[in-house]
Amino acid sequence: MTSPALRRTTQPNQPLIELLKQRFGERLSTAAAVREQHGKDESYHTPAPPDAVVFARATEEVAEVVRLCAAHKVPVIPFGTGTSLEGHVAALQGGICIDVSQMNRVLRVSPEDLDCTVEAGVTRKQLNEYLRDTGLFFPIDPGADASLGGMTATRASGTNAVRYGTMRENVLALTVVLADGRVIRTARRARKSAAGYDLTRLFVGSEGTLGVITEVTLRLYGIPEAIMAAVCPFPSVEAAVDTVVTTIQAGIPVARIELLDAKQMDAVNKYAKLDYAVAPTLFFEFHGTARGVEEQVALVKEFAAEQGGTAFRWAATSEERSKLWQARHDAYYAALALRPGSKGWATDVCVPISRLAECIAETKRDLDQSFVNAVLVGHVGDGNFHLAFILDPDKPEELAEATRINDKMVHRAIAMEGTCTGEHGVGYGKLDFLVAEHGDALSVMRLIKKALDPDNIMNPGKIVRV
Amino acid sequence: MTSPALRRTTQPNQPLIELLKQRFGERLSTAAAVREQHGKDESYHTPAPPDAVVFARATEEVAEVVRLCAAHKVPVIPFGTGTSLEGHVAALQGGICIDVSQMNRVLRVSPEDLDCTVEAGVTRKQLNEYLRDTGLFFPIDPGADASLGGMTATRASGTNAVRYGTMRENVLALTVVLADGRVIRTARRARKSAAGYDLTRLFVGSEGTLGVITEVTLRLYGIPEAIMAAVCPFPSVEAAVDTVVTTIQAGIPVARIELLDAKQMDAVNKYAKLDYAVAPTLFFEFHGTARGVEEQVALVKEFAAEQGGTAFRWAATSEERSKLWQARHDAYYAALALRPGSKGWATDVCVPISRLAECIAETKRDLDQSFVNAVLVGHVGDGNFHLAFILDPDKPEELAEATRINDKMVHRAIAMEGTCTGEHGVGYGKLDFLVAEHGDALSVMRLIKKALDPDNIMNPGKIVRV
Repeated sequence: MTSPALRRTTQPNQPLIELLKQRFGERLSTAAAVREQHGKDESYHTPAPPDAVVFARATEEVAEVVRLCAAHKVPVIPFGTGTSLEGHVAALQGGICIDVSQMNRVLRVSPEDLDCTVEAGVTRKQLNEYLRDTGLFFPIDPGADASLGGMTATRASGTNAVRYGTMRENVLALTVVLADGRVIRTARRARKSAAGYDLTRLFVGSEGTLGVITEVTLRLYGIPEAIMAAVCPFPSVEAAVDTVVTTIQAGIPVARIELLDAKQMDAVNKYAKLDYAVAPTLFFEFHGTARGVEEQVALVKEFAAEQGGTAFRWAATSEERSKLWQARHDAYYAALALRPGSKGWATDVCVPISRLAECIAETKRDLDQSFVNAVLVGHVGDGNFHLAFILDPDKPEELAEATRINDKMVHRAIAMEGTCTGEHGVGYGKLDFLVAEHGDALSVMRLIKKALDPDNIMNPGKIVRV
Repeated sequence: MTSPALRRTTQPNQPLIELLKQRFGERLSTAAAVREQHGKDESYHTPAPPDAVVFARATEEVAEVVRLCAAHKVPVIPFGTGTSLEGHVAALQGGICIDVSQMNRVLRVSPEDLDCTVEAGVTRKQLNEYLRDTGLFFPIDPGADASLGGMTATRASGTNAVRYGTMRENVLALTVVLADGRVIRTARRARKSAAGYDLTRLFVGSEGTLGVITEVTLRLYGIPEAIMAAVCPFPSVEAAVDTVVTTIQAGIPVARIELLDAKQMDAVNKYAKLDYAVAPTLFFEFHGTARGVEEQVALVKEFAAEQGGTAFRWAATSEERSKLWQARHDAYYAALALRPGSKGWATDVCVPISRLAECIAETKRDLDQSFVNAVLVGHVGDGNFHLAFILDPDKPEELAEATRINDKMVHRAIAMEGTCTGEHGVGYGKLDFLVAEHGDALSVMRLIKKALDPDNIMNPGKIVRV
């Protein structure tokens, strides 16, 4: 719906594409359908197809492509599963898309070190499937079955972050192809290190603008002895949020604590033929020893009861839990299904938890006074929540109104010492908000971008304008 | 004992010093004693005094000093408490030292958000004293009562890191004075954010080479309901390390798990008039709910017993625990006291925990075959351990031998996918090891350094050679 922030400044580079064709044969595609699929993500942003797509199978192949692109000064756009939400994969200036989905090998698992190394195209579900017999799991769960390279590049998080952190806390090291085609490893496998600048964290969240991530070393966790999940309706959004704030402030190591508003619960019920109460609802998950989970549950039930939340529905078996969390993960599609033919727009602010109730209340007030439709879901344990606007793509006034409400919400979050994006990233959709959020610090990001990618070929037009 | 890696290339800059004198009066010192104190840390490295020391009282004052230094292309060296260990504060090329110890205000504590903001000169003990009535604490404990700015700059960790992480995980945002005197804030207070490059983590561990840290926003934690600490001797270092490895692999959230070898225990006993068994010993601390701690203790006792560790001595009261940990923290000084007139050298490797037993065993073998004296202490839960060499400063052959053993140990750790420094940092003491550890990634560090500090005035000669 929106226009790309930058327009193409280069033309399809035929000599480069010929070279790539010679080298990669069938694994280089210029078919319109392939290009289109690789220029769009799951967001409302206007797609922009690359000139060609290379399906790489190894770090060295990625390096070859980048070296050729560097020699021709042609943009490089990495692609995992295309599930990002801020136009990250749009080829705003054309260029070569490197699809890493065939780099899908789990290279190493060290149960004794609680870590593993995977190629960038391995998805989170694939990894957890692979780990099934080890007693270990990888907790970060952004909903989509995204590639771990993409999750690293966008600093993804999701429902488990309140206990396990985000990709920032869970990536130990990366293999990265730099803008000149050199390959580096950002760190070794030690759990901690003070050996120079933290290149790992620099590339986590860099969205392909500093290099192409080809391998990821990740922390793993033992599957908890006990897991309990529950759903509980509350008399109001405020009551639900207050329960969350009390839980976090008490230091209870809850694994997931998610909010869905009444409208969203209605959508979920209809979409998945469920019969949850149509009320603001918290989804919980508790991990620990049997006794530890018991303790956590007892405390949280107490906090919830103080806010009028007493009708807990428990999911104790793995199947019941899967069903419960599927309902949560389907929330976005359920919301869209409320209005056939609609398009969704998922917003993404995050504030200090002390400001969360206020931030949500003010945002809800804006929505109540507006003619656009939106549902609210949130990783509220982190202070992070999303509005999903449900828009008629044929009514530009709806997008304009959603834009107005989102702008107001983002500036509200920033004024509350929060961020314009808790987990979706910047892409080209949030470039302008970074000015408000970072001020002069944005100039440091620009210096880094220029230093590592002087010709601006790495996913240009994302994160920082150069 | 060693020579600085770089020699002074500039002369004391009299016009600049005059300007600073006019601006800061008594708070600018060129007294020899002050300069000498500010050019040396607690390491064995050769000190190098700055040309002058400014005692800054605010971020804006730091910015003024940096702007003047930038205009005169004179080095800037930040100074907190001078407790670093790799020559971090040595003014290798002369220049102006900015002492931030008078920037010692706790600016804000938000109990509801479990965070606070402090000026860079606040020390960790001062912060915990300040927090005493809030029920909160800041866990990172490198032993020395270091400034939080310095701990951030060196990515410090210490005994609690196994549970609470290092400064990397516990700094939420920073105020930094850049090389041109501009002031940035690296992030806001949201618990997570995907809004651009992770500047916070870039400055954590940058050792003053990219900017001067003037304010730090930190995560805080609720003081656990229950805390238990214990000391337990083992029949061998291997038995102790195996207990650690089993504990970590079982995912027990032990708060501290520290190893001291028999020689170190002997030193501790003599130094503090204690009567611990002279044997390889683990120091433990457990945090949690009363029942949670009970569970952790039961499991760890079981693991220890399997390795012949049964003689646990418990410290339940706060006073007993302080005494126990004081013994641990005094280890280095206790070792030096074994040999009056000696100088110490604390090494610092960190490996994946699966390699820890092997790394320690091979290192111990080297020591057994050598004529130099060393004791071993370690934050073994992280795979991190230190040898403290106890050297006669009048016997260069001892330093040469210690260097040989350390070189071998560092390359062993790197070969085991570990790091040359778990927590002490690079300073100018470990420059050369970074080549072996990082390879081409070091060139990325150099690009960043050049981009952010083109005139190489920010603590030159540390981390990367330019």
